[in-house]
Amino acid sequence: MATLLHIDTSFNGENSHSRAVTAAFRKAWEAEHPEGTVIYRDLAAEPVPHLEAAAYYAGGTDPAFALRAELIEEAERADVILLGAPMYNYTIPSTLKAWLDHVFLVGRTSITENPSLAGKRAVVVTSRGGSYREGTPQHGNDYVENYLRLALGDMFGLDVSFITPELTLAPYVPAMAGLVPLFESSRTESLAAAESLAKELAVQLAA
Amino acid sequence: MATLLHIDTSFNGENSHSRAVTAAFRKAWEAEHPEGTVIYRDLAAEPVPHLEAAAYYAGGTDPAFALRAELIEEAERADVILLGAPMYNYTIPSTLKAWLDHVFLVGRTSITENPSLAGKRAVVVTSRGGSYREGTPQHGNDYVENYLRLALGDMFGLDVSFITPELTLAPYVPAMAGLVPLFESSRTESLAAAESLAKELAVQLAA
Repeated sequence: MATLLHIDTSFNGENSHSRAVTAAFRKAWEAEHPEGTVIYRDLAAEPVPHLEAAAYYAGGTDPAFALRAELIEEAERADVILLGAPMYNYTIPSTLKAWLDHVFLVGRTSITENPSLAGKRAVVVTSRGGSYREGTPQHGNDYVENYLRLALGDMFGLDVSFITPELTLAPYVPAMAGLVPLFESSRTESLAAAESLAKELAVQLAA
Repeated sequence: MATLLHIDTSFNGENSHSRAVTAAFRKAWEAEHPEGTVIYRDLAAEPVPHLEAAAYYAGGTDPAFALRAELIEEAERADVILLGAPMYNYTIPSTLKAWLDHVFLVGRTSITENPSLAGKRAVVVTSRGGSYREGTPQHGNDYVENYLRLALGDMFGLDVSFITPELTLAPYVPAMAGLVPLFESSRTESLAAAESLAKELAVQLAA
């Protein structure tokens, strides 16, 4: 039975672009896997605490380790990990960093020959208010994708795909009015990419 | 009267290398400014909450804005901002990101012609377990210094100095045993750098 771990982090609720795209992925995924399981975490509504020393140094059956064990096991049970990772102040939300700090575990999920999440697929929706593509004035100021490639890809060994709805501030910022059409096409493309990726991964899981 | 804003974020208490170096800076700073004021925040002991929509969209006298106003005003009152920023999983602690998310305010601290913190000095202690210098295998995996140069330097307009105690895991990791002398010299140099920078900034403030 296929399992999807779906994590949202945007604090913008129904107005969130990352949530719209993760929802599109999930809907298509559920259509492909009617018997599948979805584990859902909304880290804006229910954040995990910042990692503390007790939890960092704990292990095994120590009560301080319980939440870390739960979060790691959710990821290990999943076939696909779907993350909403909006850019807040040029990098990931503090809620997502707190989740990562719990899941990073030397010798199990990282810094080991066979990290327990290695080879799983991850789909990360990295929405942002502007554009950070090559050739734009903000190119080089994106610390979402490069950091997550390191953390999820190089460290956890996940096979990561990024979907990037961009220029989401264009409808609200007068100076960005001319960019509204680009924002709209980015939104449309991101929703379509989420759907087609969900179908593509279903075929891979079935194979 | 000179004011220092001193923020620690390490969860390692008395064993923390970043705390040892921020303490050395503070001690030297206090010796130079016996009448000065120190505002202290320990974000491990008392973290600020993750930024939520209510606080993000609030302003003025809105109660949801009160904590952001308090954190921003602390930074604005300071002549020097001293930050302990240990590397956790290749980037900053979630507690520090949460603090930054509260302090980033478009039109006041960032994205404005005259950000309210511009020109102040900042001293950031970026301790890390390994080494990320050019020529080391981990070069390129440091998302602490480059991100903080953008956030504190380019966005807030602070004049940032970094002090980097490195290889702090050497005494604990058998494979790093040969690096213990380098760790020890890095610690000694970092403590000395903190003291001399505190004195240098005192001369600048007095001028």
